[in-house]
Amino acid sequence: MSKEQRARIDAMMRQPRPAGPRTVAELRAGFEALMARMAVPDTVRTTRTALGGRPALRVEPDGGPRRAGTILYFHGGGFVFGSPETALCLTGHLVAGTGFEAYSPDYRLAPEHPYPAAIEDTLRAYRELLDRGTDPAAVAFAGDSAGGGLAVTTCLAARDAGLPLPAAVVAFSPGLDATRTGPSMDSKEGVDPIFTRAAVEHTGAMYLAGADPRHPLLSPAVLADLTGFPPLLIQVGTNEILLDDSTRLAERARAAGVDVILDVTADVPHVFQAFAGLLDEADEALDRAALFLTQRIRARAAANAPAR
Amino acid sequence: MSKEQRARIDAMMRQPRPAGPRTVAELRAGFEALMARMAVPDTVRTTRTALGGRPALRVEPDGGPRRAGTILYFHGGGFVFGSPETALCLTGHLVAGTGFEAYSPDYRLAPEHPYPAAIEDTLRAYRELLDRGTDPAAVAFAGDSAGGGLAVTTCLAARDAGLPLPAAVVAFSPGLDATRTGPSMDSKEGVDPIFTRAAVEHTGAMYLAGADPRHPLLSPAVLADLTGFPPLLIQVGTNEILLDDSTRLAERARAAGVDVILDVTADVPHVFQAFAGLLDEADEALDRAALFLTQRIRARAAANAPAR
Repeated sequence: MSKEQRARIDAMMRQPRPAGPRTVAELRAGFEALMARMAVPDTVRTTRTALGGRPALRVEPDGGPRRAGTILYFHGGGFVFGSPETALCLTGHLVAGTGFEAYSPDYRLAPEHPYPAAIEDTLRAYRELLDRGTDPAAVAFAGDSAGGGLAVTTCLAARDAGLPLPAAVVAFSPGLDATRTGPSMDSKEGVDPIFTRAAVEHTGAMYLAGADPRHPLLSPAVLADLTGFPPLLIQVGTNEILLDDSTRLAERARAAGVDVILDVTADVPHVFQAFAGLLDEADEALDRAALFLTQRIRARAAANAPAR
Repeated sequence: MSKEQRARIDAMMRQPRPAGPRTVAELRAGFEALMARMAVPDTVRTTRTALGGRPALRVEPDGGPRRAGTILYFHGGGFVFGSPETALCLTGHLVAGTGFEAYSPDYRLAPEHPYPAAIEDTLRAYRELLDRGTDPAAVAFAGDSAGGGLAVTTCLAARDAGLPLPAAVVAFSPGLDATRTGPSMDSKEGVDPIFTRAAVEHTGAMYLAGADPRHPLLSPAVLADLTGFPPLLIQVGTNEILLDDSTRLAERARAAGVDVILDVTADVPHVFQAFAGLLDEADEALDRAALFLTQRIRARAAANAPAR
């Protein structure tokens, strides 16, 4: 069953697309249309709000159990497209699976706002959560693709700013290397039904806008010192040119003494979790992520309680 | 809290021990005494039975939910010591967490019965399960340390024998390399509170009894072709000289297109899951393993059901 599902998803993602580079407006509209087809659980409700000076989507359980915990979710889209709404299938499943609330900030996008605008916005969002009295031990960062990269780099930026760190980081198919030096960048070209090196470099250049990619906040898989990082869950498919962004970050985390789970699903594409409802592996991966988030937020809350 | 727990476990494992190599009888008695201190859930019951021509322990849920599924569990002890009883803390937690039954075969040990006696016995145990009509899609192999190695190599041996493969393999701190070439064999010496290279080579030589370690059933992390392998969960601590047995098997699995989760907990020793009840990370790791087993056996059962 699942082998057939994996093949069907692969074929769906290989549908013919317009040849040549598309405009930013076309990229944004195309991504919005694609992600609008993904299933959002009907057990969550959303509210438009603001966080850290940017619009944000608050996602809460609607009925069902609620637990004390906050997921700060960063949507994907190569820093150029996407919004809290395009990632709602993912945010919604994490909220439904954990009972936590989530905030999904609408961080600024390139090319209008290149690096480091996105990280400035996500760090401000976290800072506002803390300023409101949210216990960092009850906060997790999560995100997909470029937003999975932001989950990692916002944590680095928080550490560098002297802020208390969240309890956990979850990254789905994160983009973690603007130097594009992972072996999978070439070995998975053609295998990856979504990305090519050229496509990734096209949007990547808009985000960089001339910045040197050799910086920990742009290429954490290659350059970040992860000492003191909270427990990390990375989920990735083998049909991704970004696969080795994940494998190399996991190695760095391990070497830095960080709890790290590298959860690899074979023969699925970039951010396969978005296919929850269509692909069993997607639902299962999201359930594993929900267990991880629940364990880490519960553990940190217990550690901060008065000594027994 | 957990940081204190990790330090306490480390100190406990560093208790002074008799100097110099111990006799086989001393190794067996010492391991039995150590493992008798570990907590076994009171929600399971055990029955002595036989499987594949060897004694075995059957472990079942005692009250609480039962689910259709069988864990074939292989105890640790360097192929020289240990028994189904010494691993009961681990087997019991997996049974309690999944609702599955488990069989833990008392495979033959070295030096009396060197390689390949253990794998012959574990493969016979699996074959008898199949002969009794057990659906392989409802079977998972699991094990710790040398038994984690057996979970992997018994699956290789089953594939080579043309048997249908189990739905999943779970390995806790598996020993997967009789060539002892993992970088952690040296980099974690002193960090590992339990093992030294000398100790591992002492028992390893009894198991090898002169056999060439360069064989996939002795060193799967270095030599095994994992094509067609079922989904694999590997859990390991960073304070282990065997750490890179796990990291290298995970790499091989990824390259062979196998679903593989490499779940690394920092600053914990070899088979830290045995400290369930004392160490939060142990209980959490076992809960993650139980979710993985439940997902994989459910998924394989669904895939084998008549087409929808």
